[in-house]
Amino acid sequence: MAAPIEFYFDFSSPYGYLAARRIEEVVEEYDREILWKPFLLGALFKTTGAQPLLDIPMKGDYARLDLARSARRYKAPFVLPETFPFMSVAACRAFYWLNESNPEAARELIAALYDTAFGAGRSIAEATEVAAVGEKLGHDPEEVLAALKEPRIKDLLRREVEAAIAKGVFGSPYIIVDGEPFWGSDRLDDIAQWLKGGGW
Amino acid sequence: MAAPIEFYFDFSSPYGYLAARRIEEVVEEYDREILWKPFLLGALFKTTGAQPLLDIPMKGDYARLDLARSARRYKAPFVLPETFPFMSVAACRAFYWLNESNPEAARELIAALYDTAFGAGRSIAEATEVAAVGEKLGHDPEEVLAALKEPRIKDLLRREVEAAIAKGVFGSPYIIVDGEPFWGSDRLDDIAQWLKGGGW
Repeated sequence: MAAPIEFYFDFSSPYGYLAARRIEEVVEEYDREILWKPFLLGALFKTTGAQPLLDIPMKGDYARLDLARSARRYKAPFVLPETFPFMSVAACRAFYWLNESNPEAARELIAALYDTAFGAGRSIAEATEVAAVGEKLGHDPEEVLAALKEPRIKDLLRREVEAAIAKGVFGSPYIIVDGEPFWGSDRLDDIAQWLKGGGW
Repeated sequence: MAAPIEFYFDFSSPYGYLAARRIEEVVEEYDREILWKPFLLGALFKTTGAQPLLDIPMKGDYARLDLARSARRYKAPFVLPETFPFMSVAACRAFYWLNESNPEAARELIAALYDTAFGAGRSIAEATEVAAVGEKLGHDPEEVLAALKEPRIKDLLRREVEAAIAKGVFGSPYIIVDGEPFWGSDRLDDIAQWLKGGGW
């Protein structure tokens, strides 16, 4: 089996949500694992000087329209949460904690958190909200809340964010296929084409 | 015949170059005219606070890679000019001047200017360089140089740039189909899909 595909994303990224829903289907026939890599865009924005997308004059208005339209195209339910962008530290830590013992459950948690945030437009910014999503998947909320406070888990996330910045990741989703980076949910078809032909 | 497709672009935009090469082929079967609308990204950047793409930390490096890769995918020759981004006022004025009397020749001028800038990597920033490109297409360079200085042509471009900003155009290429905006050379397939189905 060839190298896994690295899928970098922020839980607060609506384009990350759209891409996370489709990536497995897009790469299905190429027998590649997905390595899920949530990180914190806010930390990157400090490096790049970028602003949150929807706050940018003109571009923000376009992004609102484009997000709703992209969601319709791929038949994804889409509601922008009232508070946006939102803090995704708790969601990230919950993922990395669960991923240590059970990567499949951690993948399910991504889907459930993203569906809550952008499918239903509900907040996942607070630790208790993340734990409530986890509870629906059968994870003890007290255990999740305890894990979110563990220094080891905090360090783990910090290292992942640093590693993402060191790799050049500057947006979400940011997908690396055999060392080749692709930025944006609108590049999934390019990725399929790339996998099919071994580059172009 | 349905309304024309508005194609906003900056002559200094490499993604504009890639899209301008493909747009007619992409929309061919839908019987739509293209309304070519060169404008000045620099004027917009003052409004949006955006920086030139390649100057942005991390994102700039990605864009260099992505441009070369996108050009390979669509079999477009691609060389980034040494001075980039460059002033595109002269190119814009030459277009609007020629477009008044001969839209077909003005379309040819776009292709020739873009091929010079991004196909061959040569400067089209200076009035004399624009006139030299025009000369190859049979336009008297003295006449072009005189037109570039005409207050009427300068005003025409100023109004076009203001109109673009008023329409919400914030990047290049920015393509409007029946009031629906699409930003980026990577949205041409979306445009074809949109035209095919009458939206989605």
